Amino acid sequence: VQIDELDTPTLTADLDAVERNIARVQRYCDEHGLALRPHIKTHKLPELARMQVDAGARGITCQKLGEAEIFADAGFDDILISFPLIGRQKIERLRVLAERIRLCVAVDSDEGAAALEGIGVDALVECDTGFGRTGVQTPEAAARLAGRVERFRGLMTYPTPPGTGEWLRRVLDLVGEVDCVSVGGTPTASSVHELGVATELRVGTYVYGDRACLANGSVPLADCALRVLATVVSTPTPDRAILDTGSKALTSDLAEGATGHGLLLEHPEAAVYKLNEEHGHVDVSHCADRPRIGDRVSIVPNHACATVNLYDEIVLHRGGEVVETLPIRARGKLR
Amino acid sequence: VQIDELDTPTLTADLDAVERNIARVQRYCDEHGLALRPHIKTHKLPELARMQVDAGARGITCQKLGEAEIFADAGFDDILISFPLIGRQKIERLRVLAERIRLCVAVDSDEGAAALEGIGVDALVECDTGFGRTGVQTPEAAARLAGRVERFRGLMTYPTPPGTGEWLRRVLDLVGEVDCVSVGGTPTASSVHELGVATELRVGTYVYGDRACLANGSVPLADCALRVLATVVSTPTPDRAILDTGSKALTSDLAEGATGHGLLLEHPEAAVYKLNEEHGHVDVSHCADRPRIGDRVSIVPNHACATVNLYDEIVLHRGGEVVETLPIRARGKLR
Repeated sequence: VQIDELDTPTLTADLDAVERNIARVQRYCDEHGLALRPHIKTHKLPELARMQVDAGARGITCQKLGEAEIFADAGFDDILISFPLIGRQKIERLRVLAERIRLCVAVDSDEGAAALEGIGVDALVECDTGFGRTGVQTPEAAARLAGRVERFRGLMTYPTPPGTGEWLRRVLDLVGEVDCVSVGGTPTASSVHELGVATELRVGTYVYGDRACLANGSVPLADCALRVLATVVSTPTPDRAILDTGSKALTSDLAEGATGHGLLLEHPEAAVYKLNEEHGHVDVSHCADRPRIGDRVSIVPNHACATVNLYDEIVLHRGGEVVETLPIRARGKLR
Repeated sequence: VQIDELDTPTLTADLDAVERNIARVQRYCDEHGLALRPHIKTHKLPELARMQVDAGARGITCQKLGEAEIFADAGFDDILISFPLIGRQKIERLRVLAERIRLCVAVDSDEGAAALEGIGVDALVECDTGFGRTGVQTPEAAARLAGRVERFRGLMTYPTPPGTGEWLRRVLDLVGEVDCVSVGGTPTASSVHELGVATELRVGTYVYGDRACLANGSVPLADCALRVLATVVSTPTPDRAILDTGSKALTSDLAEGATGHGLLLEHPEAAVYKLNEEHGHVDVSHCADRPRIGDRVSIVPNHACATVNLYDEIVLHRGGEVVETLPIRARGKLR
């Protein structure tokens, strides 16, 4: 079966491109002595995580405890949860999971550190090296929190803006050497060795690529594996085509450095300028060959991770020939 | 069990508010002799659609064929699919579904009309009365298409900007009286009788309400039934709190007339100013009582329909007491 024969909207990934992406980043990590711990929030598929680990990744990263439970069930035994775990129910589930696999979690508060006491999980102190999200605010605060964490193993940050290396080095000056300094982010994934302090790379989006990766140069179009297949369902005016893919198929996420809601490969002059829930509005006024009702198009979505999270399954293919259709097992695991 | 005891993120709906919303709009339709055909894209739950039909609704509206199949399986036998159905596979599935239930679909093109020949479904000609999405562009084009539709039953539009009544009346002047003139949209749902031509109202969001409904005045806060329950997982600075609800729990959809990503009920002075996938960034600098790590909060999401589509299940409650947890059966039915 060819993917061109599948009804739309359908989410597809090119396995050849996936394999190239896995190999490229693994090679980079190997060359620079970095452990690779891919973030499964992008694909949410145990099958692809297995490919990543088989290629040399040292464990995986999950963003939510519910994702980690799914992947533990699938046989993964070394998981970092890069999100603060707060609340009685989460800690109880964490305790149960920690009895089965090697588990490490992010911590950025005294409350978080206290909750982990006696639970049997390692912890990385999350550092805010400039992103302005979670994480302790100064190297001194990181060192102080490290002293309060029962099983302190190292540091974690995301992403790695200028100054990150110095920031983390200052913590190490205060606490001494650590097992792990974990840094994340696909856009800067090819230069984290320059930080001089990272021991581990966490990246997710690199495996599929997306329109944001195209805009920031981290994944070339030839390696963008993910496509949303769509159909033109209406051409109400000569300048407007409507696709059967709206925000429930493409997300409302924008891509930094690009306008609109996805790259329409068959019509690169077209602009997906607006989304309703099930309608994609396309300005085709600049298209030499304007799409017609019934035409099928392939869209590189703005944001791979958020798009994948909308679908129950994904079709893997090689050169357009369907290899298999996989359930996106960790989709919607918000807890 | 109280909803306050449930782990987060969790999606909840207040059944008392749902019932008030269903009753209010049904009463309006009854008073004005309008048929109500609620749009299930908002809740995607056969159980709530049953409440709507039991209250007096004349059938339901679905946006995608896959939703209609789920609802037909659940016993609904009068469904409008308010979306152009294009493509061989869709038409074949439509034919099968039409053998089981009374089915009507939107059509806005000659191609769409031709595809319906011999399929055994009724059709409404979709009219673009100002929204600039799907739909024929002029009353004359609507009349022409009506003549090409095998089982033409009437007209359909969404939403109803000024001039909609005249637009549709002009079509009727050309084609004569029709069975159905169906109009949609929660924001204007209480004034469609003023169009003087509508026979049917399609509305979805009214059943839950959301932050956009608050901003446009269509659903008061007391009747906003939907909440995303979240936990404060980090307070990295005195002015910033981080929730465990990001774009995968709240969507990236904005609400017209409001800024940010949801209304935080316990802290109305707080602003959810940014979302990452699993992190909600909250500016708490204006809060008299600043949220602390571990605090639970309740969020009225920007856009009910898109938010619901992210969750596998929803918890229904009355006054905070859990009534039942339902699978969101038509979630992700994009085809």
